[in-house]
Amino acid sequence: MRVYLAGPDVFLPDPGRRAARLKAICAQHGLLGVSPLDPLDNEPAEWSTLPEPLRIARRNEAHIVSCDALIANLTPFRGPSADAGTVFELGFMRALGRPAYGWTNTAVCFAARTRRFTGGIATDAEGLLIEDFPALHDNLMIDGAITASGGRLISDGDCNEALRWVRLDAFAACVRAIAERSGPQGT
Amino acid sequence: MRVYLAGPDVFLPDPGRRAARLKAICAQHGLLGVSPLDPLDNEPAEWSTLPEPLRIARRNEAHIVSCDALIANLTPFRGPSADAGTVFELGFMRALGRPAYGWTNTAVCFAARTRRFTGGIATDAEGLLIEDFPALHDNLMIDGAITASGGRLISDGDCNEALRWVRLDAFAACVRAIAERSGPQGT
Repeated sequence: MRVYLAGPDVFLPDPGRRAARLKAICAQHGLLGVSPLDPLDNEPAEWSTLPEPLRIARRNEAHIVSCDALIANLTPFRGPSADAGTVFELGFMRALGRPAYGWTNTAVCFAARTRRFTGGIATDAEGLLIEDFPALHDNLMIDGAITASGGRLISDGDCNEALRWVRLDAFAACVRAIAERSGPQGT
Repeated sequence: MRVYLAGPDVFLPDPGRRAARLKAICAQHGLLGVSPLDPLDNEPAEWSTLPEPLRIARRNEAHIVSCDALIANLTPFRGPSADAGTVFELGFMRALGRPAYGWTNTAVCFAARTRRFTGGIATDAEGLLIEDFPALHDNLMIDGAITASGGRLISDGDCNEALRWVRLDAFAACVRAIAERSGPQGT
């Protein structure tokens, strides 16, 4: 079973090592982790003329299409929400109708993170409403999609701030959940 | 032609009025704007038992499926990137293979906005790389998807910070671009 590994992990100082670590955890449970860093088999020749970022985008979309499920690192990234590229990929997979899982190394809910970010109570400094659904991990489209897809959103409540780009307990819990649903062969 | 109006406009102080304004611009060009605030025709009865945020998420997904194109307000929202819900919906529409347009009321590129946000140069305070593709408006998945879908990402370079949740010139430019491609009847 192929699982796309979405996340801002590609921005870590040694992204290749991180991808190998995530893939190793997948392999322990009979799953094949697919990283955004992986080359694409049979990449269309015409993509070679695209600017690099647009070629990467096409490649990542093709990787997602090739996968049976997705696991997204939704740890807050430069603001209260998850990384934009990761959220895009989650939406893409959701439209394909396949299971999407998420993990996050914070137990602070989205509404509280947003209030902390803006310093406001019910609106931010520009007068825009802060959604107040206390149980949500992020924007309602994210939590809603994961639930509707049959996936799970797992947060690591024990992770302290300094380890939020290190700890993989919640990721491993997602991998185990997918492996259990797909049976002993991971198929 | 039905066009889904994605954006954090739903968080503005008077979201109903904003939606009416966006729809009026669509109507001037023969398009039917569909807002996340709209009720859904024939909403499945079983959704009534869902928690409210998850019901909203399902409804928005159904609205997107019902549309021929999407226009996303990608104006930066509580951080360097666009609103997470909007980005999710863009990814969802991209996977459906239909045209996606974006507009943003800033001319500052994503790399510069991110450096401004983090105060860093090539990495942020936690050591994570800042992507440096100077021509991008946001994460490469966003720019890449819009381009690949045949849409356009239009930024309002004249908009000053105080008007970024007010001005609709770039939105109107997206509407005109869709109307021109779909012909005089907007079909």
